[in-house]
Amino acid sequence: MASTRLFFSRGFVNDSVVLSIRKFTIFRTEKKVFIRMFSAQTIGEAPKPEYDLVVIGGGSGGLACAKEASNLGAKVAVLDYVTPTPLGTKWGLGGTCVNVGCIPKKLMHQAALLGESLHDAQAYGWQLQPENIKHQWSALTQAVQNHIKSVNWVTRVDLRDKKVEYINGLGVFKDRYTIQTTTKQGERLLTSKYFLIACGGRPRYPDIPGAVEYGITSDDIFSLKNAPGKTIIIGAGYIGLECAGFLNGLGYDATVMVRSVVLRGFDQQMAGIITESMVQKGIKFLHKCLPDSVEKTPEDRLLVKWHNQQGEQFSDVYDTILFAIGRRALTRELKAEVAGIKLAPDNEKIDAVNEQSNVPHIYAVGDVLYKKPELTPVAIHAGRLLARRLFGGSTLQMDYQNVATTIFTPLEYGCVGLSEEKANEDYGADNIEVYHAYYKPTEFFIPQKSIAHCYLKVVSLREPPQKVLGMHFIGPQAGEVIQGFAAALKSNLTVETLMNTVGIHPTIAEEFTRINVTKRSGKDPNPASCCS
Amino acid sequence: MASTRLFFSRGFVNDSVVLSIRKFTIFRTEKKVFIRMFSAQTIGEAPKPEYDLVVIGGGSGGLACAKEASNLGAKVAVLDYVTPTPLGTKWGLGGTCVNVGCIPKKLMHQAALLGESLHDAQAYGWQLQPENIKHQWSALTQAVQNHIKSVNWVTRVDLRDKKVEYINGLGVFKDRYTIQTTTKQGERLLTSKYFLIACGGRPRYPDIPGAVEYGITSDDIFSLKNAPGKTIIIGAGYIGLECAGFLNGLGYDATVMVRSVVLRGFDQQMAGIITESMVQKGIKFLHKCLPDSVEKTPEDRLLVKWHNQQGEQFSDVYDTILFAIGRRALTRELKAEVAGIKLAPDNEKIDAVNEQSNVPHIYAVGDVLYKKPELTPVAIHAGRLLARRLFGGSTLQMDYQNVATTIFTPLEYGCVGLSEEKANEDYGADNIEVYHAYYKPTEFFIPQKSIAHCYLKVVSLREPPQKVLGMHFIGPQAGEVIQGFAAALKSNLTVETLMNTVGIHPTIAEEFTRINVTKRSGKDPNPASCCS
Repeated sequence: MASTRLFFSRGFVNDSVVLSIRKFTIFRTEKKVFIRMFSAQTIGEAPKPEYDLVVIGGGSGGLACAKEASNLGAKVAVLDYVTPTPLGTKWGLGGTCVNVGCIPKKLMHQAALLGESLHDAQAYGWQLQPENIKHQWSALTQAVQNHIKSVNWVTRVDLRDKKVEYINGLGVFKDRYTIQTTTKQGERLLTSKYFLIACGGRPRYPDIPGAVEYGITSDDIFSLKNAPGKTIIIGAGYIGLECAGFLNGLGYDATVMVRSVVLRGFDQQMAGIITESMVQKGIKFLHKCLPDSVEKTPEDRLLVKWHNQQGEQFSDVYDTILFAIGRRALTRELKAEVAGIKLAPDNEKIDAVNEQSNVPHIYAVGDVLYKKPELTPVAIHAGRLLARRLFGGSTLQMDYQNVATTIFTPLEYGCVGLSEEKANEDYGADNIEVYHAYYKPTEFFIPQKSIAHCYLKVVSLREPPQKVLGMHFIGPQAGEVIQGFAAALKSNLTVETLMNTVGIHPTIAEEFTRINVTKRSGKDPNPASCCS
Repeated sequence: MASTRLFFSRGFVNDSVVLSIRKFTIFRTEKKVFIRMFSAQTIGEAPKPEYDLVVIGGGSGGLACAKEASNLGAKVAVLDYVTPTPLGTKWGLGGTCVNVGCIPKKLMHQAALLGESLHDAQAYGWQLQPENIKHQWSALTQAVQNHIKSVNWVTRVDLRDKKVEYINGLGVFKDRYTIQTTTKQGERLLTSKYFLIACGGRPRYPDIPGAVEYGITSDDIFSLKNAPGKTIIIGAGYIGLECAGFLNGLGYDATVMVRSVVLRGFDQQMAGIITESMVQKGIKFLHKCLPDSVEKTPEDRLLVKWHNQQGEQFSDVYDTILFAIGRRALTRELKAEVAGIKLAPDNEKIDAVNEQSNVPHIYAVGDVLYKKPELTPVAIHAGRLLARRLFGGSTLQMDYQNVATTIFTPLEYGCVGLSEEKANEDYGADNIEVYHAYYKPTEFFIPQKSIAHCYLKVVSLREPPQKVLGMHFIGPQAGEVIQGFAAALKSNLTVETLMNTVGIHPTIAEEFTRINVTKRSGKDPNPASCCS
């Protein structure tokens, strides 16, 4: 049986959209379908798309790609629009990192660390009574928001300098070649050769009574008008822990409710030590608990009810309830399905290969990507490399392996490469060596700060020269400590080389060069001496 | 002409000292002397030396070697004795680093940084008036000295645990096989199979009137009874700059007198930036000047006179004059010449090859070594590797290349590998690429700290993949930032790899992964945006 059909297709030839008509004869046998192309004829030229690249989402990844593309000569527009939170919080250009992520979080972490510094300063001879010094929440949020606004401004100027068009509107696919957006100036349709989805994600709320009405998320905390007071944080991922950490450091009562494990996906020994160090600082943890409801009390506070694994019921009154139970990608809002983009069934993210979605001219970077690290520098790097591939003739792909990261809890946790669990899983415990050590930061002695949780480990292959697979560090300045080692891992660092790297004394990073106790040996990982 | 002579020699056979008599016939011609050995006969066994290893100097290098040797089964003694300074300062076991070097310096640096933190804290919402908070010198010195005493104690206990004999006496060579020492218990002679000279060095005083009577050095400053007040520091090496830095940070008027250049031996562009950053903080520099005399004024202050390159005379009154003009090795005190050890004519240091002096059984590590970095971890590492070679069958030699270091000035300077000058000299400027960048630490914005001197550079070969030869970083936490990159350099880091290392955001260390401007390009090395 054979039938002849006409197929219309639209493609790009020399930067022009080309409508083609193709005549096929389809042969069907019992088991197979043969398609033979009879003729292909260009029947006309559609208008050239307005842009070379339209980026949906003005966050780190989208902006990095947009600017690099423009530098390489492409005509680029970026759409950015922030839907206000249930509490009404909104913000400017720059995405999560600048507005409600890394930047304000690091600044609030710094504020908390400076609170610790007041105690340290006294021990080092500065004549002050740290216990009498109070923190003013509104002064901090104002300072943080002023900084963010200046970054929003610089970001905008930078786009203008780099000749990237900025459109303050929500981008929605009308078809796979067209984005529709509504701005103050009215509705616009944008056609483009390529699209980049970089819309990121937003925090989720649990489906319990009162969550949306009374709860806040990390989208709100950094500009919260009133001091948070006694706060319960629901969720023990890195965002939950970081928020609990700085709130505690600023003097607020902080409790973390943990559904299953702390820091899922991270090395669980390190997660345990981080938890212990936070408990030591006065942060409370409710393990294996789930929230049930939030109600307003007559005194305008919040009654939170929850239950544990055994089904026991609990409740307490808080001033603030902060949900940090995860984030969802904003693919629904942009109607990805209209463009034919397949989304991962479990979380509606885009399962791209080399940032390319199943629709070849539609790409994605950043937090919207399925099973990729949700980190600003990852998005930036992927975005920049993508621009170079699309417009610069580059073939270099993004390498998502061995991406270092740091959690800015009061005692920070930085890591790169594999967790101990993952290394054991991937290579077998018999083929893995784990070096570990407790260490004593020189600066901790005089103010008698706890060194109980200053710990590091190096996960390597067992066979000499013992290629390093992962490095883990808990302590102050963990991000600064780990970054260089991330470059070393990328350069195929071995334990042999690490042990023969001369330390910088006295630093805490040098402790990695002093490792000599393996877990397998069962020897005491506590340090004996300081400087010999 | 021929004559027959008898030579006595002493050597080691199976751990015993063996006296041999050798009969030689010496033939003399006009131009040459021929020696023919007739017979060699062991004539008796001298007593086995008391120790396998006697270490002269209980500092970082000596102790590290002693402990490792003892771990490997050797019988080891360490002699340590501190001659008081002209002011009368003395200290306990552990050497320069623990007592009058890295440790107290880092603690005083930390005290100064905490003073800055008070200002920062106010900007971050902590309600205090930093300008009303004074620093108490004696509280700091007491805290620092208490810490040092605890380290002395731990060091001593550690030696006992590791079965290393500690002798609190000055070691002096009596012959090349015997060390003489005087302790409270009287005189002792120690014989050993090997000796390790690890006596380190002490600060020098200039040969001008009043220097020794009225001046102090880094040996005194950390335990100085009275607050230093208005201080002039003579010398602009790293010790001088560090002292000036923390004194200024603690609120004292500090002036640095520079003979020729600041930070000789370091990258001079970086040295210039460090100087500028110190000037910005209020530290004064007297360039191209030499001190002439120090006198006491009737008010018990110090009148310092000096002249500049043009011969112009100057004077000013100070409370403290601190000499940091360099250090001399203590080889004279230990009578190295008695043991036949050759010393470098210019500075009386030991020009060892793989830590071995010209006398084969006498070794040296640490600051006493000729043309080797005077750094604690270098001494420790060299000492430990030496012990493994002597007693553990190892053949691994110390690698003195690419040793990272950090100068703890108020804004710190960390580096590893070659300076720009040295790279140009070694490879030719045409073959060198220098990437550089100014950067803006996130935490600096809110307290409006100056970012003018936050700068880094990467010196590499020009040819792809651009092997990295040197990395230089000025900013906070420079030691923590540079350490990991030192391991990366040892793993043959290239610029290509560095650029493809994903950053940890927001850190300052990530700035190394963002480099993209070469000096050759002439482009602006100032950053545009923060997070994209």
